[in-house]
Amino acid sequence: MVDSSEIRALLFDVFGTVVDWRNGVARDVGQFLSRHALTIDSFELADAWRREYVPAMEEIRSGRRPFVRLDVLHRENLLKVMSDYGVDANSISADDLDELNHAWHRLDPWPDSVEGLLRLKRRFMIAPLSNGNIRLMVDMAKRTALPWDAILGAEVVRAYKPSPQVYLETVEILCLKPEEVCMVAAHNGDLAAARQCGLKTAFVTRPTEHGPAQRTDLHAEQAWDFIAADMNELATKLGCPT
Amino acid sequence: MVDSSEIRALLFDVFGTVVDWRNGVARDVGQFLSRHALTIDSFELADAWRREYVPAMEEIRSGRRPFVRLDVLHRENLLKVMSDYGVDANSISADDLDELNHAWHRLDPWPDSVEGLLRLKRRFMIAPLSNGNIRLMVDMAKRTALPWDAILGAEVVRAYKPSPQVYLETVEILCLKPEEVCMVAAHNGDLAAARQCGLKTAFVTRPTEHGPAQRTDLHAEQAWDFIAADMNELATKLGCPT
Repeated sequence: MVDSSEIRALLFDVFGTVVDWRNGVARDVGQFLSRHALTIDSFELADAWRREYVPAMEEIRSGRRPFVRLDVLHRENLLKVMSDYGVDANSISADDLDELNHAWHRLDPWPDSVEGLLRLKRRFMIAPLSNGNIRLMVDMAKRTALPWDAILGAEVVRAYKPSPQVYLETVEILCLKPEEVCMVAAHNGDLAAARQCGLKTAFVTRPTEHGPAQRTDLHAEQAWDFIAADMNELATKLGCPT
Repeated sequence: MVDSSEIRALLFDVFGTVVDWRNGVARDVGQFLSRHALTIDSFELADAWRREYVPAMEEIRSGRRPFVRLDVLHRENLLKVMSDYGVDANSISADDLDELNHAWHRLDPWPDSVEGLLRLKRRFMIAPLSNGNIRLMVDMAKRTALPWDAILGAEVVRAYKPSPQVYLETVEILCLKPEEVCMVAAHNGDLAAARQCGLKTAFVTRPTEHGPAQRTDLHAEQAWDFIAADMNELATKLGCPT
């Protein structure tokens, strides 16, 4: 295993890695659907909403659209998905749609996340490096006591992962060298982009992020510097006492 | 007194308002001077170093120079002040100068700051809105347990207070209206700029920030929305239980 002694900061993917977006979004979608007497499966709608995430960001990564924060993309994607499912969004108040859009601010951490982060925080600077915007990350952290040292990520650098500038500019903001920073993610693609930029990499397996039938990111696809079953095991592998 | 019920976030000036920069910088300057057998008064050098702060930022606020983070300005100002005091900076290693420059990362909070912030954090989002850079704020917070929800400020918006865009863009990042945000500072000028942008204002008196002979910012110069003798009194005035 790679020596962790030169690592000063850990950057975390959040959706899927630190928090369980699927159950959280489906819970709030379910309440919304009940309120409006709509008979759509809440997990199906949550998954459909999430599928719009990558193409929406790609418009910005490609340069076809100026940067807008993720709350804006989520809100647009929600309208699109509702339309796909035959729901007339015009019949629903803007406040009600905003409230549902904020489901992404109300996601619960995986059971090991807070304890693992508290252990890691004693030795390292810890911050999200998420595509989620700052306010989203603050709301999520306050609701569930995620102990971040700072909120970094897409909105700070005004670009979306996996664009290299997101990793490199964040390392620069931390006044560190890439090899002093470790990206932590449940997604091989995020780690591959971070490694290309010279960061260290830690894979945390989240085999039910996409539900019981998940087929992607079940295993490390490269020899990442650290591989752990959860945040507590990562803390142990990085030498953080319980 | 103004009703605090619509306030969602508190933004804090840090140098002087949350932490005691003068004693902290003088302490580290003193150790540096001893190490190099230099007979200069450490408070005099700390004050001289701080006096370069406003003119250095003014170069950037005026548009004459692109944004650079405060660590860079502090480092340049240190060389200038050393030269003014007849110290040959070339005789000192870059590492030693960097170490001294990081005195600004190692400042202690005023005795009431951590307790007051912990109370305020239970009801409000709390973040620094300092001219200090992100890494500086993270180092300071980790060393002394300042419980920020996020690190906002000059480096996030790439501009220095009191430029209006610093306040307005930060409010926008928080997805709030200006009147839902309260600027907390020991400096009338900072609050005047925040009020011009529509933010609420809270003055916390720090009568020894500049030492025992301080003559500025001893009193509120406008009818700020809240006026408190320290962070605990501010928490009480904003309805936060002990």
